[in-house]
Amino acid sequence: MSSAAMDQPDALAELAHTHVTFADGLTLDCGAHLPELTVAYRTYGRLNEARSNAILVCHALTGDQYVAEPHPVTGKPGWWDAVVGPGLPLDTDRYFVICVNVLGGCMGSTGPRSARPDAPDELWGTDFPAVTIHDMVRAQKRLIDHLGIARLFAVVGGSMGGMQVLDWAASYPDAVFAAVPIATAAYHSAQNIAFHEVGRQAIFADPEWRAGRYWQTGGRPARGLAVARMCAHITYLSEQALARKFGRRLQHAAKDPSEAINLFGEMFEVESYLRHQGSTFVNRFDANSYLTITRAMDYFDLAADHGGDLAAAFRGTRTRFLLVSFSSDWLFPTAESRAIARALNRAAANVSFVEIETDKGHDAFLLDEPDFHRTLAGFLSGCAEHAGLPR
Amino acid sequence: MSSAAMDQPDALAELAHTHVTFADGLTLDCGAHLPELTVAYRTYGRLNEARSNAILVCHALTGDQYVAEPHPVTGKPGWWDAVVGPGLPLDTDRYFVICVNVLGGCMGSTGPRSARPDAPDELWGTDFPAVTIHDMVRAQKRLIDHLGIARLFAVVGGSMGGMQVLDWAASYPDAVFAAVPIATAAYHSAQNIAFHEVGRQAIFADPEWRAGRYWQTGGRPARGLAVARMCAHITYLSEQALARKFGRRLQHAAKDPSEAINLFGEMFEVESYLRHQGSTFVNRFDANSYLTITRAMDYFDLAADHGGDLAAAFRGTRTRFLLVSFSSDWLFPTAESRAIARALNRAAANVSFVEIETDKGHDAFLLDEPDFHRTLAGFLSGCAEHAGLPR
Repeated sequence: MSSAAMDQPDALAELAHTHVTFADGLTLDCGAHLPELTVAYRTYGRLNEARSNAILVCHALTGDQYVAEPHPVTGKPGWWDAVVGPGLPLDTDRYFVICVNVLGGCMGSTGPRSARPDAPDELWGTDFPAVTIHDMVRAQKRLIDHLGIARLFAVVGGSMGGMQVLDWAASYPDAVFAAVPIATAAYHSAQNIAFHEVGRQAIFADPEWRAGRYWQTGGRPARGLAVARMCAHITYLSEQALARKFGRRLQHAAKDPSEAINLFGEMFEVESYLRHQGSTFVNRFDANSYLTITRAMDYFDLAADHGGDLAAAFRGTRTRFLLVSFSSDWLFPTAESRAIARALNRAAANVSFVEIETDKGHDAFLLDEPDFHRTLAGFLSGCAEHAGLPR
Repeated sequence: MSSAAMDQPDALAELAHTHVTFADGLTLDCGAHLPELTVAYRTYGRLNEARSNAILVCHALTGDQYVAEPHPVTGKPGWWDAVVGPGLPLDTDRYFVICVNVLGGCMGSTGPRSARPDAPDELWGTDFPAVTIHDMVRAQKRLIDHLGIARLFAVVGGSMGGMQVLDWAASYPDAVFAAVPIATAAYHSAQNIAFHEVGRQAIFADPEWRAGRYWQTGGRPARGLAVARMCAHITYLSEQALARKFGRRLQHAAKDPSEAINLFGEMFEVESYLRHQGSTFVNRFDANSYLTITRAMDYFDLAADHGGDLAAAFRGTRTRFLLVSFSSDWLFPTAESRAIARALNRAAANVSFVEIETDKGHDAFLLDEPDFHRTLAGFLSGCAEHAGLPR
């Protein structure tokens, strides 16, 4: 990517987000206390009188709360526009959908971009304490309590969002009627940790990172973050999807002496696509948030938190589970969802498990997958009947 | 990795390699003419009187000619110490084994580190012309001719080495009695190109790269090259191997404020391992060579060079083929070897194809895999009988 593409003003700094601030802060798993907790969120649909129709959507690593409306930085449609809306699986004519920017994120919730309480002219940067998936969930719980919702009708999310769903069901079983962990796992695998570490090292290697204090100079480790995104993006797709979309097709490439060495002045379309993914990402995401959130995923290990027995995390649960995996997802392969299903069975939980046939890889949960959407819609309607939700 | 680990003197600059120089140079596929061609190589065993017992070993992307002896930079054992030597599958009591540093490499053969013929005080750097796998093979052929070997008993190689084996068999069928392409493919897939592109972007993002002219300042894009290596290294292993070797085990990590954010002062073993892989690699490899060679792999497409029909590349061949793949190799999956086998069958070639069961991933061809070694030894003995090689 050219440096020019990276040379945008800091779009994140100028945004205002719907939020609520809790003056008593939040104590984290690592022992640190955040003196103040801000939770930024968006809602879609209407909360009913009984406050019984709320669905919490948990977003993935690079997602945010703009689920079903244009993104304030990119202007692109919401990341789950195909799933959340009137008549869609998360039907906003029926359900009240909430999505929270995760703790540690960069879209308004408390995170490395927040001002330090002890030095309000400075940002947290990498001094922001390490957060866990459970910390993210506890921040969400504060908002849910604040909204007067005693029990969520459902908690739904893919990838890191699925980790949050599992943590919700394990931590607050009485507050979750139905749980839908999608394309996820109960722990982050060594291979996934390894890919995250490559991304982090790419950020650390960028001189603009300045040990995380880049906000002091107005710079950003945009190239490092773009490389991290490119590497991660490959893992979100399948080999088949890449072959189908791009194959080995070439396209013209301007000779840029500061960059690529292109044989015959051409480059592969897949390279151009990846560069585009990298350079657009850096305008809507913060490098320190990327570091904080990848770390939270790496540390996630729900069984370890329950004496090594995943079933123990769910013992006695009355939550209804739908697990979804995608056949070509190699980042969170079906075997990992199956392991969760087995643990839920051992815990005598009510669990459905569906593997969707698709060649779209991990990203399938974000894409137009009719089978997946039908499964999700059907499960939620069934649960709505059990929960006695009015039609 | 710490910057200190990167701060080694340029070990590559001080090496002397066995080599031969061809004063008439080499014309490349891209049309450029190298006025002078140096081919650096090593041999093991003894060439017989009939010059009929030579095996050419082709190395992979980051390999070199030091197959079965300590590496001159790292001091580590040769990269195929388990395969090449007395009594081993490539038995140096019987065969004369040759390995050539590829054209574009950094261990003595002509490449981006070579002096420019038109300005001998300068190095080629990124002005070095793009090379193809076929160019590498033609440079090797020059050496084989120079050694007075009309026909190689065998050409053997894994990964990019396997691409060279395929090109040898297609380009010089009469000069190859037996061919053993291992863990390879007849073209580089979109996913593999994508991973290479991430590595290249990591190098471009390093300010020390200086548009490829880092040798002018005495610097090196060590951090970018290390990130490239880390990313590639994950693809050489399998998820199972990473899980088995490291799982989610933690180790103590010194708090380095310029680098990682480590929860509770710990890091995962797999991270430490990857960092080590990255930081040791940069002392033995040149960034411009990495760019040149990854490009050559990306452009490899043997069928495209033969009107889209891979069988046409081998029509009429009398070479005996052994194809080997590894069940957990996701970089060059078995399906790609099978496609080569099918093309060879269509060409009525003599072909054996073996998939070795292993969880070690792509790197299995470099590791202690008894089944693989037995298969290789058996195939070569059988061929030796057919070729009438004295015992």
